[in-house]
Amino acid sequence: GNSVLSSYGTTIFEVMSRLAEEHRAVNLGQGFPDGGGPPEVVAEAQRYLAEGWNQYPPMMGLPALRQAVAAHAARFYGLEVDWRQEVMVTSGATEALAACLFGLLEPGDEAVLFEPLYDSYVPIIRRAGAVPRFVPLRAPDWTFSREDLAAAFGPRTKLVVLNNPLNPAAKVWSAEELAVLAEMLVAHDAVAVCDEVYEHLVFDGRRHLPLMALPGMRERTLRIGSAGKTFSLTGWKVGYVTAAPALLQPVAKAHQFLTFTTPPDLQHAVACGLGGPDTYFDGLAAEMQRRRDRLSAGLAACGFGVLPAQGTYFVTADIRPLAGDEDDAAFCRRMTVEAGVAAIPVSAFFEQAPPRHLIRFCFCKRDAVLDEAVARLRGWL
Amino acid sequence: GNSVLSSYGTTIFEVMSRLAEEHRAVNLGQGFPDGGGPPEVVAEAQRYLAEGWNQYPPMMGLPALRQAVAAHAARFYGLEVDWRQEVMVTSGATEALAACLFGLLEPGDEAVLFEPLYDSYVPIIRRAGAVPRFVPLRAPDWTFSREDLAAAFGPRTKLVVLNNPLNPAAKVWSAEELAVLAEMLVAHDAVAVCDEVYEHLVFDGRRHLPLMALPGMRERTLRIGSAGKTFSLTGWKVGYVTAAPALLQPVAKAHQFLTFTTPPDLQHAVACGLGGPDTYFDGLAAEMQRRRDRLSAGLAACGFGVLPAQGTYFVTADIRPLAGDEDDAAFCRRMTVEAGVAAIPVSAFFEQAPPRHLIRFCFCKRDAVLDEAVARLRGWL
Ligand SMILES: CSCCC(=O)C(=O)O
Ligand SMILES: CSCCC(=O)C(=O)O
Repeated sequence: GNSVLSSYGTTIFEVMSRLAEEHRAVNLGQGFPDGGGPPEVVAEAQRYLAEGWNQYPPMMGLPALRQAVAAHAARFYGLEVDWRQEVMVTSGATEALAACLFGLLEPGDEAVLFEPLYDSYVPIIRRAGAVPRFVPLRAPDWTFSREDLAAAFGPRTKLVVLNNPLNPAAKVWSAEELAVLAEMLVAHDAVAVCDEVYEHLVFDGRRHLPLMALPGMRERTLRIGSAGKTFSLTGWKVGYVTAAPALLQPVAKAHQFLTFTTPPDLQHAVACGLGGPDTYFDGLAAEMQRRRDRLSAGLAACGFGVLPAQGTYFVTADIRPLAGDEDDAAFCRRMTVEAGVAAIPVSAFFEQAPPRHLIRFCFCKRDAVLDEAVARLRGWL
Repeated sequence: GNSVLSSYGTTIFEVMSRLAEEHRAVNLGQGFPDGGGPPEVVAEAQRYLAEGWNQYPPMMGLPALRQAVAAHAARFYGLEVDWRQEVMVTSGATEALAACLFGLLEPGDEAVLFEPLYDSYVPIIRRAGAVPRFVPLRAPDWTFSREDLAAAFGPRTKLVVLNNPLNPAAKVWSAEELAVLAEMLVAHDAVAVCDEVYEHLVFDGRRHLPLMALPGMRERTLRIGSAGKTFSLTGWKVGYVTAAPALLQPVAKAHQFLTFTTPPDLQHAVACGLGGPDTYFDGLAAEMQRRRDRLSAGLAACGFGVLPAQGTYFVTADIRPLAGDEDDAAFCRRMTVEAGVAAIPVSAFFEQAPPRHLIRFCFCKRDAVLDEAVARLRGWL
């Protein structure tokens, strides 16, 4: 097998989900809701299966979904997007990322990444022949220093990957942080691939600010969104990339040979969903914030050191009060097997200098599931 | 943009479909049926959307579909397949191919390809850092010489890509040809990635023979199938790879970062479809054979030199009796615009020494559509 990819194990999300299933653990590892998504969106997919077109949609996506993505960007962020030239549908955000990285990077290029990071970024960057350069974000507030950022950029820097809101740190990037990054992109003539799949999962009155909305960034950013997180339908694998034509064209070249296209019934349903009322999007964030609070309180009562969670599906917890010297990965395995509760070790999101004292819990579950997890943990500890 | 991918245009199938739409042409270019697929399969997808699990399925695919793929291989080809270790579901055959090539190839490796070939193979091979080596198949019977095959193999050969039945040549590979290839694979310790999406579309009493079923090939082949062609649902993008564990594992490493997984409703429905009665599969082939005959007769009556079509959705036609010196690409464009009938120039399936006198028609359409196309052509010529 290919030496780059073979050096990586099976993705931690899959590994922990398998372990959870094996031990009948409550799975607060891999990030997925246990609900079924908005019934009206699901109904549209059903209707389209019967009445619509089950053959290849256009390679760039159904016009209805591309229009909906453009309208969504205008409505929430004031972005003007030409759906005909600036929106492409992909088979989930994972494919969107792969298409961006394979489509933009040249062997020998450098890509700047903030750690912690989602586990597909580095393998794809390396498989694309490029070299990752890392900027550490430091717990518990996950900020970066200007010096570290500057040190990661160089003459070969082609792009930055930015995950905002940030999984697993549950960080929502501030306007100031984004401005520092924007300055750097301009100075180095680089672009940003912005993985914004949690754009609607921000809490406590915060608003998501896409890097694309900053001055000078419209032509330097590719923005990735996904139906999985926005509609609680992670299995659907419908994603979208928005970017200026000069950036989107090379990405489309990769997409056409990676998957070519995405099921039209699901595309159609997501188009309907994106046009939903404000109450839908506000309600989703409010509901997830409530669940965050419920799980965080339960974990704190168990003795975990619970970190703030500004967005995403996740809350991270300091295990030191409970685990002594045990590292996060060992603790997660033991917690899954012994307590019957699965979580993800935060070290899995690092390529270098991982912290060993943090684990990530997913809170986008029904109350009964969250409560059962906390009860199991309380009994175990 | 990446220099390899940027050197390729938009895929010819998309280009011709857009042109067809623009000119309201009958689209006999891109290969897709105009029917809706088996209603009982579509109904299963609908049911699952409402009652099933819309979150991430396992990265390797739903167990039900993996079991169905294994059972299908036993039933049709007598292959023993362990679904737990030897089957992976992908987002269509295109993703399956990308996962195989990115997962198996190392920069500097060589890949042997027969021409004509499907247009995603070479860009992905080159983007994976590998070098394509070509074996010509020569019209009108699309056979290869042992010498040409031997010349394409060398010390760096890692794999061969075999499309059987072969698009666009409508060739079904004979047991003898496969045996020659198998011998070569063993001699060079290489493997074959077998794109067999048209496995159920073989005509005139032929049977599809997977290279995997030949002696010694079980451990040297990856077999790719797809629901798109087997169930006339090309938009669903559900594919599957079957291979020995040592070959499948590196491919799974690529898949997990390319798309991770595939919509569970469609996976479930395809699992049901694969378990369908023999009459379904026989009926599909018989119906497509009937359409092949209908279109072929019409084209011949127009004066095209119609080539034999042993399988696939396609029939190729020699344009020389009608086009004079005009090349296939120019003729296809003019036919789309002037006659209102779109087809695909066969030169688009070649990297070197393309023939310029053949075009490909897709016949998997309703009779009225085929007849309308022929009527338009007759009026035009
Ligand atoms: C592709 S499975 C991972 C899901 C996810 O985004 C997460 O758990 O972080
Ligand atoms: C991915 S669109 C191409 C469809 C097809 O297989 C063909 O027309 O050859």
